[in-house]
Amino acid sequence: MNASAVVQVPLGDRSYSIQVGSGLLGAPASYQTLPRASGAVIVTNETVGALYGERLIVALRDVYPKADIVVVAEGEAFKTWHTLQTIFDGLVDAQADRSTTVIALGGGVIGDLAGFAAACYMRGVGYVQVPTTLLAQVDSSVGGKTGVNHSAGKNLIGAFHQPLAVVADVDVLDTLPQRELVAGLAEVIKYGAVADDAFLAWIEASLPLLLARDKAALVQAVTRSCHIKASIVAADEREAGRRAILNFGHTFAHAIETGTGHGTWLHGEAVGCGMAMAADLSVRLGLIEPVHARRIATLVAAAGLPLRAPDLGSKTYLDLMRLDKKAAAGALRFVVLEAPGRAAVRTVDPALVAATIAEFVEAGTGKSV
Amino acid sequence: MNASAVVQVPLGDRSYSIQVGSGLLGAPASYQTLPRASGAVIVTNETVGALYGERLIVALRDVYPKADIVVVAEGEAFKTWHTLQTIFDGLVDAQADRSTTVIALGGGVIGDLAGFAAACYMRGVGYVQVPTTLLAQVDSSVGGKTGVNHSAGKNLIGAFHQPLAVVADVDVLDTLPQRELVAGLAEVIKYGAVADDAFLAWIEASLPLLLARDKAALVQAVTRSCHIKASIVAADEREAGRRAILNFGHTFAHAIETGTGHGTWLHGEAVGCGMAMAADLSVRLGLIEPVHARRIATLVAAAGLPLRAPDLGSKTYLDLMRLDKKAAAGALRFVVLEAPGRAAVRTVDPALVAATIAEFVEAGTGKSV
Repeated sequence: MNASAVVQVPLGDRSYSIQVGSGLLGAPASYQTLPRASGAVIVTNETVGALYGERLIVALRDVYPKADIVVVAEGEAFKTWHTLQTIFDGLVDAQADRSTTVIALGGGVIGDLAGFAAACYMRGVGYVQVPTTLLAQVDSSVGGKTGVNHSAGKNLIGAFHQPLAVVADVDVLDTLPQRELVAGLAEVIKYGAVADDAFLAWIEASLPLLLARDKAALVQAVTRSCHIKASIVAADEREAGRRAILNFGHTFAHAIETGTGHGTWLHGEAVGCGMAMAADLSVRLGLIEPVHARRIATLVAAAGLPLRAPDLGSKTYLDLMRLDKKAAAGALRFVVLEAPGRAAVRTVDPALVAATIAEFVEAGTGKSV
Repeated sequence: MNASAVVQVPLGDRSYSIQVGSGLLGAPASYQTLPRASGAVIVTNETVGALYGERLIVALRDVYPKADIVVVAEGEAFKTWHTLQTIFDGLVDAQADRSTTVIALGGGVIGDLAGFAAACYMRGVGYVQVPTTLLAQVDSSVGGKTGVNHSAGKNLIGAFHQPLAVVADVDVLDTLPQRELVAGLAEVIKYGAVADDAFLAWIEASLPLLLARDKAALVQAVTRSCHIKASIVAADEREAGRRAILNFGHTFAHAIETGTGHGTWLHGEAVGCGMAMAADLSVRLGLIEPVHARRIATLVAAAGLPLRAPDLGSKTYLDLMRLDKKAAAGALRFVVLEAPGRAAVRTVDPALVAATIAEFVEAGTGKSV
């Protein structure tokens, strides 16, 4: 018997719930609360569609007698304006109307694309997330951020559009490559680091179970992660303030991803390294004890995430970070730890940032401070 | 001395105000309440940009020291996904950030494009409407509907995104071709017909002044129209119900526009004829007296709007109208008049619709019932 749970995301008339458990994707009961409509359109990619498309269509039949599938190309490189147009064409071909529900079946890229298409089609139709990666289950399925990339920036074009519901089935993680599972764990660790030190301790203790894909441990990790993200998002839906702490590790991560060329590092891998770097920076700012930064770095490494940052050169790092959305008028702003389980956004002296970069490029440990 | 007025659009934290008057566009005072930011990006077309672009930049200088201009191709044919991409590229080139304000300087096409671009850029930046046609001043500047056309339908892709403010300067109507002024009057007449019989009477009495572009009369017409639309939108921001009455005449109009090829009839011309047809249909349904339908038709004709519908064939009309967004499961739904100044949405027997079409195609008067 596996644990299962429901996380409420309280956003007024945009509230919804996240079901987390085993055996959910193929169970008609998972979709019973959705608004009845003549049709649903499932957006997925070839790999995920082949694995779970048919099972989902059967499970949806009670609520959506007609379900079409739109298959889009796989990977972050296709999270574009052009792919979005393909989805709109698919919605038109399926004769989707205002009552049609879009179902995002896939990882974060599919969720972002399908969610943004749903936000814009006929000025907004409902959508449901059925996330099939750990990263999507703990991150992109909560918060309503949707969008596509532009050559000038990731997620530059998009919308806030909350889903009607999220169905996070940990069974689908069985087919996930280990490298992607590990990348997803980076975001799980992040929630403990920025908001819940007891959860961080639980992750440390449960890491072997999580890496072995123990269902109960995964349900617990996803549930607690979604709960933390939901409470932060509920307080700041449009990211005016506190929600920014969810970007812990991400300023370094984006520089690593952009500097090495998108796709070289997985996002979660870059976030893993970036969190260790941000913890190191927090020590240099005198905010936390070195022992806590080492704890973060140790957990990142134990999860199988990289600790050594690529050698882009200090200037390239700083230039890339000045392009970060948190940057204001050229100043460098970072999410830092103020205490175990507590984060905040601070403007930081570039010299300190450079010292952290040097440490992680050279030693790859974050243990010098 | 010309009258001026402010119409509040009460939409909670998305509330904004519409300034209506003479001499507003070039007056720095018109923009003083906007949020200060490093930059604004004006979206316009070549004609309007040449007439008013520089004057607007100077007037904005206090609030936005830096204002870039993005010029897009003119006309409904360019209200596309592709043009939207041009605007995003322009925003990137102008180094627009989350605090940038987009200014829509133009008619309804520019407002829809710039508003939708603002809705999506960085998941939403603020925008201001500076409408330069009567149609845009009384219609598209209120309500937050933005979007682009898709080959499968007008405004199929879009968002609800309320502006920060609207500056409706009736002086700019001086450069508007008479045909477009008349087309705008169709929507003014519509507000009287569906919501305010006293306003309808005022339009009847003031028509010569309006056609002669008397400033005070135009301010009054725009103010009252915006006020009516604002009160309807406030009660139903996302068009779940009552807002649909604003589509009075539009089901016939869309069929005329599509059937004759977009651009042959101006939207307002089709709405003028469509309103007379919808009033005729209301008589056939036994809802209003023939004298009231004749009053609508007479006003439409007096304004210089067409009363004779194009001969598309009854079947084509009905097929096109079944594609209307109000249509549900193949049933024909129309906004009809229940009384002078009161409208509602009804499902209508196709035989009655065919009779109305025949009347307007053949006699072009609506006076047979």
